Amino acid sequence: MNNAPIGIFDSGMGGLTVMRALVRRLPRERFLYLGDTARLPYGTKSGETVRRYALQAAHALTRRDVKLVVIACNTASVSLPALQEALSPLPVIGVIEPGAAAALQAAPLGPIAVIATEGTVKGGAYVRAIHALSAAPVVQQACPLFVPMAEEGLTEGPIIEAVAQRYLAPLMARLPKPKALVLGCTHFPALKNVIAQVVGPEVILVDSAATTAEAVARLLDERHLAATAKTAEHRFFVTDAPDRFARVGEIFFGSPIDPGAVEQIDLQ
Amino acid sequence: MNNAPIGIFDSGMGGLTVMRALVRRLPRERFLYLGDTARLPYGTKSGETVRRYALQAAHALTRRDVKLVVIACNTASVSLPALQEALSPLPVIGVIEPGAAAALQAAPLGPIAVIATEGTVKGGAYVRAIHALSAAPVVQQACPLFVPMAEEGLTEGPIIEAVAQRYLAPLMARLPKPKALVLGCTHFPALKNVIAQVVGPEVILVDSAATTAEAVARLLDERHLAATAKTAEHRFFVTDAPDRFARVGEIFFGSPIDPGAVEQIDLQ
Repeated sequence: MNNAPIGIFDSGMGGLTVMRALVRRLPRERFLYLGDTARLPYGTKSGETVRRYALQAAHALTRRDVKLVVIACNTASVSLPALQEALSPLPVIGVIEPGAAAALQAAPLGPIAVIATEGTVKGGAYVRAIHALSAAPVVQQACPLFVPMAEEGLTEGPIIEAVAQRYLAPLMARLPKPKALVLGCTHFPALKNVIAQVVGPEVILVDSAATTAEAVARLLDERHLAATAKTAEHRFFVTDAPDRFARVGEIFFGSPIDPGAVEQIDLQ
Repeated sequence: MNNAPIGIFDSGMGGLTVMRALVRRLPRERFLYLGDTARLPYGTKSGETVRRYALQAAHALTRRDVKLVVIACNTASVSLPALQEALSPLPVIGVIEPGAAAALQAAPLGPIAVIATEGTVKGGAYVRAIHALSAAPVVQQACPLFVPMAEEGLTEGPIIEAVAQRYLAPLMARLPKPKALVLGCTHFPALKNVIAQVVGPEVILVDSAATTAEAVARLLDERHLAATAKTAEHRFFVTDAPDRFARVGEIFFGSPIDPGAVEQIDLQ
């Protein structure tokens, strides 16, 4: 069991920022990544539809004998309770709770700003997770164009700066000014530099990829599930367009993805 | 049969620009619109996946007794032969052939430029349709950010102008300069003003919504299928998020959509 892989699931390739943090934090572990590229994006879809898709994806991972499932997608993390129940006793970790805890560590009294997709903002999962731990005020802003712009590699320059201004300037003009900004979508770490530039150095950026990697490391330790040996390479599964995944995924994974390691599967 | 509705299918709401042209051209007809919003966008998906989705959508329309199916989605129009075979003898019309014919009418010797989604460009359907009629040179450019920007209502102002420049300036710098520009995605008519401004008044914009409406009118006439009386209101079906459809759809339909006329259905 210890040498079984860790399953990571996302609607597309944004979750590769989480996998990147996991690979860095847990270099001995082996990962299976599943991106539901045939049905992305999840951010504009209803909670019920996202839950159905997330369950199908999680079962595709458990059929491949993973020891743990990471939902590396903020939108799909709204399905965390449903997935934990369906996969029990297999541990399931989402990105919301680690991100909320890290935001409170950065700014214990708030205000905390959360940027995310339309679906995550509407679902209010970060607000609930933060308020479960603290009364710190939380403000939210949907940034739907960040996802397609990051996927097009538009991670710097005047266009993405103008779009970031459009979303973030009103958020940062609020009084009192937010002290921490949660990157509540796994695509957003690719835009970290331009976001930091727009909000200014006094606002702490909370990247839930890194905090999720910490939470996974802790859980492996507590349950004595850490790998004792690395047995094979990482693998990637997508529901559509494996070539595009390997090509564009590099923006998020931070290193090249071998097209031969990407396999297309069907979830329906 | 004459008073049966016309079915229109799109991956989301872009096809509403085609429905708008159809309603204007054929005011006595009744339309059923189906947007596969749970699985949009199609533009980044493979031809095989798009074909499977398009067949499911077309069957959902034929179960509702339509007399004709319009594929109001450039990406899904690659499935036209498969749909025509599956639905025969029911007539099926796509947007590619009418758009190609209109482009050649505007610029018989070319060059013709086509802007579309990644999927449409990669599939090369416009190039094939134009070259089936003429040897006019064709150049293509994918404009993937136009879809999410139009859906966010970013149809004017400096951001969309900069994005339009990014896509269109290299296309228009080619020699000889294109004489006609095909808006090869049903979302793009919402960006017509900014596109016209960037390419200049000497380039003729070909909007396939209008040309498809003409093709449908002609086909109804030839097959004696035109409505003799309008029997009920238009209806809209979506596979997810009917509220968002009614709200954002207005950008493309050009007039308000009654949320009560939008029903959620399941295609799988």
